[in-house]
Amino acid sequence: MSIRPIRWLAALALVAAPMAVFAQSAAPARVASPDGRLVVEVSTDGEGRPSWRAERDGKPLVAPSRLGMLFVDAPKFERRLAIAGQRAGSADATWELPWGERRVVRDRHNELRVTLAETQAPRRRFDVVFRVFDDGLGFRYDIPAQPGLARLEIADELTEFVVAPEATAWWLPALEWNREEYLYQRTPLAEVGRAQTPITLRAADGTHLAVHEAALVDYPAMNLVRVDGHRLRADLTPGTGAARASVAAPFATPWRVLLVADSAAQLASSDLVLNLNEPNALGDVSWVRPMKYVGIWWEMHLGTHTWASGAQHGATTERALRIVDFAADHGIDGVLIEGWNEGWDGDWFGNGEDFDFTRPYPDFDLERVAGHARARGVRLIGHHETSGHAAHYESQLGDAFDLYRRLGVDAVKTGYVADGGQAKVRDEDGRLRYAWHESQAMVNHHDRVVREAAKRRIAVNPHEPVKDTGLRRTWPNLVTREGARGMEYNAWGLPGNPPEHEATLVFTRMLAGPMDFTPGIFSMRTRSGEPMATTLAKQLALYVVLYSPLQMAADLPEHYEANLPAFRFIQDVPVDWEDSRAIAGEVGEFVVFARRDRRSDDWYLGAVTDAQARTLRAPLDFLEPGRRYTAQVYRDGPGAGWQADQTDLVIESREVAAGDTLELRLAPGGGQAIRFVAGPAGNL
Amino acid sequence: MSIRPIRWLAALALVAAPMAVFAQSAAPARVASPDGRLVVEVSTDGEGRPSWRAERDGKPLVAPSRLGMLFVDAPKFERRLAIAGQRAGSADATWELPWGERRVVRDRHNELRVTLAETQAPRRRFDVVFRVFDDGLGFRYDIPAQPGLARLEIADELTEFVVAPEATAWWLPALEWNREEYLYQRTPLAEVGRAQTPITLRAADGTHLAVHEAALVDYPAMNLVRVDGHRLRADLTPGTGAARASVAAPFATPWRVLLVADSAAQLASSDLVLNLNEPNALGDVSWVRPMKYVGIWWEMHLGTHTWASGAQHGATTERALRIVDFAADHGIDGVLIEGWNEGWDGDWFGNGEDFDFTRPYPDFDLERVAGHARARGVRLIGHHETSGHAAHYESQLGDAFDLYRRLGVDAVKTGYVADGGQAKVRDEDGRLRYAWHESQAMVNHHDRVVREAAKRRIAVNPHEPVKDTGLRRTWPNLVTREGARGMEYNAWGLPGNPPEHEATLVFTRMLAGPMDFTPGIFSMRTRSGEPMATTLAKQLALYVVLYSPLQMAADLPEHYEANLPAFRFIQDVPVDWEDSRAIAGEVGEFVVFARRDRRSDDWYLGAVTDAQARTLRAPLDFLEPGRRYTAQVYRDGPGAGWQADQTDLVIESREVAAGDTLELRLAPGGGQAIRFVAGPAGNL
Repeated sequence: MSIRPIRWLAALALVAAPMAVFAQSAAPARVASPDGRLVVEVSTDGEGRPSWRAERDGKPLVAPSRLGMLFVDAPKFERRLAIAGQRAGSADATWELPWGERRVVRDRHNELRVTLAETQAPRRRFDVVFRVFDDGLGFRYDIPAQPGLARLEIADELTEFVVAPEATAWWLPALEWNREEYLYQRTPLAEVGRAQTPITLRAADGTHLAVHEAALVDYPAMNLVRVDGHRLRADLTPGTGAARASVAAPFATPWRVLLVADSAAQLASSDLVLNLNEPNALGDVSWVRPMKYVGIWWEMHLGTHTWASGAQHGATTERALRIVDFAADHGIDGVLIEGWNEGWDGDWFGNGEDFDFTRPYPDFDLERVAGHARARGVRLIGHHETSGHAAHYESQLGDAFDLYRRLGVDAVKTGYVADGGQAKVRDEDGRLRYAWHESQAMVNHHDRVVREAAKRRIAVNPHEPVKDTGLRRTWPNLVTREGARGMEYNAWGLPGNPPEHEATLVFTRMLAGPMDFTPGIFSMRTRSGEPMATTLAKQLALYVVLYSPLQMAADLPEHYEANLPAFRFIQDVPVDWEDSRAIAGEVGEFVVFARRDRRSDDWYLGAVTDAQARTLRAPLDFLEPGRRYTAQVYRDGPGAGWQADQTDLVIESREVAAGDTLELRLAPGGGQAIRFVAGPAGNL
Repeated sequence: MSIRPIRWLAALALVAAPMAVFAQSAAPARVASPDGRLVVEVSTDGEGRPSWRAERDGKPLVAPSRLGMLFVDAPKFERRLAIAGQRAGSADATWELPWGERRVVRDRHNELRVTLAETQAPRRRFDVVFRVFDDGLGFRYDIPAQPGLARLEIADELTEFVVAPEATAWWLPALEWNREEYLYQRTPLAEVGRAQTPITLRAADGTHLAVHEAALVDYPAMNLVRVDGHRLRADLTPGTGAARASVAAPFATPWRVLLVADSAAQLASSDLVLNLNEPNALGDVSWVRPMKYVGIWWEMHLGTHTWASGAQHGATTERALRIVDFAADHGIDGVLIEGWNEGWDGDWFGNGEDFDFTRPYPDFDLERVAGHARARGVRLIGHHETSGHAAHYESQLGDAFDLYRRLGVDAVKTGYVADGGQAKVRDEDGRLRYAWHESQAMVNHHDRVVREAAKRRIAVNPHEPVKDTGLRRTWPNLVTREGARGMEYNAWGLPGNPPEHEATLVFTRMLAGPMDFTPGIFSMRTRSGEPMATTLAKQLALYVVLYSPLQMAADLPEHYEANLPAFRFIQDVPVDWEDSRAIAGEVGEFVVFARRDRRSDDWYLGAVTDAQARTLRAPLDFLEPGRRYTAQVYRDGPGAGWQADQTDLVIESREVAAGDTLELRLAPGGGQAIRFVAGPAGNL
């Protein structure tokens, strides 16, 4: 027996038709996007249950979806609610990214703030704030300070996204929660299980959607569990206490985000997640410098060298000096050296308490290497592998960053290699607790790391991170991160990344933000000698296709020295852009990006495909009209293919202008990279 | 980056072929069912990850499925494991149910105990115990006492059921966790979301499966989340602390159960769940008496009377005396009176702190009603509605049961009406906490209630309960429960139970155990006057189809008095059986049950169908050979149908014997009930 239907009848008594079971207890609140195509409505039903829904071009996009929260120490906030007030607003502003895919970002949206108030004790009031853009929407719970609500011990959210149309979904299972390194699954929406965000959807009519979140601060990450039908329900990452989120009022949750686009390319061009984050909190961040880097890294994944000390130790002084020289000789800005510090000799995976973040191995002279790097104008990128032991890392955090600060290291790669649920934090009582990588405790750990780094003008690049939710806008020293299967899977090859992997990443993982994918493998062989699913041209194209302000040239120096003509593109390609445009693409099939250098008038184009060979037409309308460009083309040769001749690369030059259209021939598993060198303006 | 693939390679180094990534680190342990058709294998992979799999008739039934646990204060138990030992055993025994669907139950199985030991610190050892029957299997984690493992703070299980074949699934969403009153969903297995158990599956080859659990004691209930593909992952109900389950070692978890059958009917005849429970802990339970009952109940759901006090109060002394007289006059054993006690006048839904379990309303003379019942030989069934406020209920539990004991009330219906996550318990520190109905805290609450009741020789019948896992074997005073949409939904109508509801329940909810469905509605109208999806014959058939040792005649006395010929079947039908056989059925379509009275040689048959009219052939081979029976048939008449004449009931008698076959004509939404009165033995 449940009394609920009787309450429905109580509601019924107030209204006429039986259908009025779902009658609104108040006029629904509505807000539309600036272009009017996307309309959001918030209402409450006869029981006072709030829900939101969305239409686009008059067609249902999101069916009525619940709003609400459950608490461990208080009644849930989800029923017996009335819309006690609403406030509308709108914004149209531009702001600048100190570094990024583009310099100028436009934030144009309409806002609706709905106050939901309990009609009975405890008479709490929550606001739900919607911001509706032309390319999607975000909403958050904004909980004002009020009597008897000092803290919120949130058991879970009841937030839902009930996607109206049939759709195909690309998603990562929350299999071991928020271990992000799985291959993307492509299934009908109705077969999605428990998914991480972003999750990308393509509706039958070609509308592309993505569900994600923005500004994840002091709160657990949101996963989505498809409870039934098309109902995606928020499933907050568990915490170290009964509450998944424990916060003090007033409090605003992260933004729950729905991206909406007419095409995959449009979806990949959205700034909505950044627009929902707070502005730069650091002021002058000229010390955050995008760069390309090489490193002592790939050889460990190939298995020829080790992080641990001993005969195969990768991070020796001698090898470090050599890689620094290679960088200096070839104009590569930075060098990453992994395995430089004590702690790698035991069974460190998922442990991490042996790591010493200030003590180098005896065969690695940190001072000397740092000095040599400074002398040669090369920037060292520090490395802090924690194995997920956040508590241990925090005990050395100040000293570790002070050391790097003193040595002039202004970027640090952090790592949290551990299975899901095995990161280590301390609870309020100082007890060691096993945590999910995306629990509130770990979210707050990463926040502390970014702040400590910022104090010392150091940028951070977390691996096995919390997913990106656009915090780089607020903390521009949070430059990039991992958070998906990177290149190292191709070294291990069991199995490696499939040929469609990068064309999937662009429309899924990359919707969240930059990724330190570490492209540029010229050798293209796994540790056991099998070919990777790529051509050489594709390795070059990835520098344009996969955006990151820290972009590695991940292969060994000797492999680049063996093919300097191809390496030239890596030397030329920028890592900071004036503008970026996805000009064509389909999820998991292919993508073409054009980006303009922030420091010159040059443009760059990158195109990659899946296992299919493709010929794509690329109109050059992004080029400045009335100006000549020299197109330096790096393309798959006639014999190229990931299962054919991977190394068949044609490098050629031609003159082009804005009117032209290029035919891009991509081999199976291949790609194409082009630099458009701007000639003098207006010389046509 | 994840180091895992490198560990794979480490494993690889030890073996020959690349495929040996999944090589076993030890010979797999195997166990087969007594008939040899069902084979289970437990093994560990190259990383020391344990998994189990199952085959039936040589075909994959369960693909490799993980085993393991996550803890909040210790590394997970899931990798770096080796099979340190195995022990085999078998059993073939019979035991008796003091009351039930049958008197004698056979427990025939083979057992395999596998010891999984960590190959590195902390070197914990868990046993996994499999019991394999001809009709399915159960397995549990059995964790011995060992150094440094005093308590287990279990964050979640990693237990998986990866169902190998394509299948159709019937399931209840864990939507608001373990609120069980939803309509069953029928979807492909690949579209299951987060499901409660039991979940029923029909594979393409006709094999029927159900995943459930047995002996849920001091542990949270297991839900299943389909993370991806066919992978059903245990998802324990959250608790009131960081751990979903907090237990002391040594500890054995509930049994994880997979029922397997060649047909739906066979699935509905399994005793496996009972066999996996502990024997009767109460000894002589002659005081637990199955019975039929009437009550002051249906009128509250029709809305003509109220639980609350006032002009419409249902539980007045006068109305109580009248219903007692009705029961006595018609040979009905018991009477349930709801709304007799203080606490219903406020907004009690989900609150419950106002309920007083010893103070009757002023217009209800409990002593007088109880005295009159005793005088007329009628047994009162007590009622304790808690609105899920377990903490408040426990504060009065002793007094409440003492009162009933003194009055001779030997059965109590309890209720926990509250939304999911809104039951109330106290944590270790005595703080009030909101809990899921099937959390460990609530499981332990129900355990306390059953024990307190048993001390006073009182049987309990929980509504909005923890799902049944067969504990009635251990606690025979835990007689029945709700735990699905019952008859009251037909009173509310919005919408009522569809015509296939009961034919679905038999193969889903009823696999767990008896249900207090409260059948027998002769009026067949919702409170707003619409017809319920049933015929009168079906209402009678439900007494045979839906087993419960407490079986209500749920309609108002006047409706029975208006049709005494039909009511006769309800008077005749037993509630305790010598044997029960599902002789035909398909999930959600139809079912035919034959049951033999435990106190006579009479047999009873019940058949119900969905919206389809059906003619079913029922061979009477269950009857005793060489004996005549008078079949008293209650069948749908020619004009009968849930959307036609619901009341068209034909009552007729005929002589039959074991050789005969009956044709059962069921109207749309209809049914048929038959009593086979045994003539003198061997008179053919």
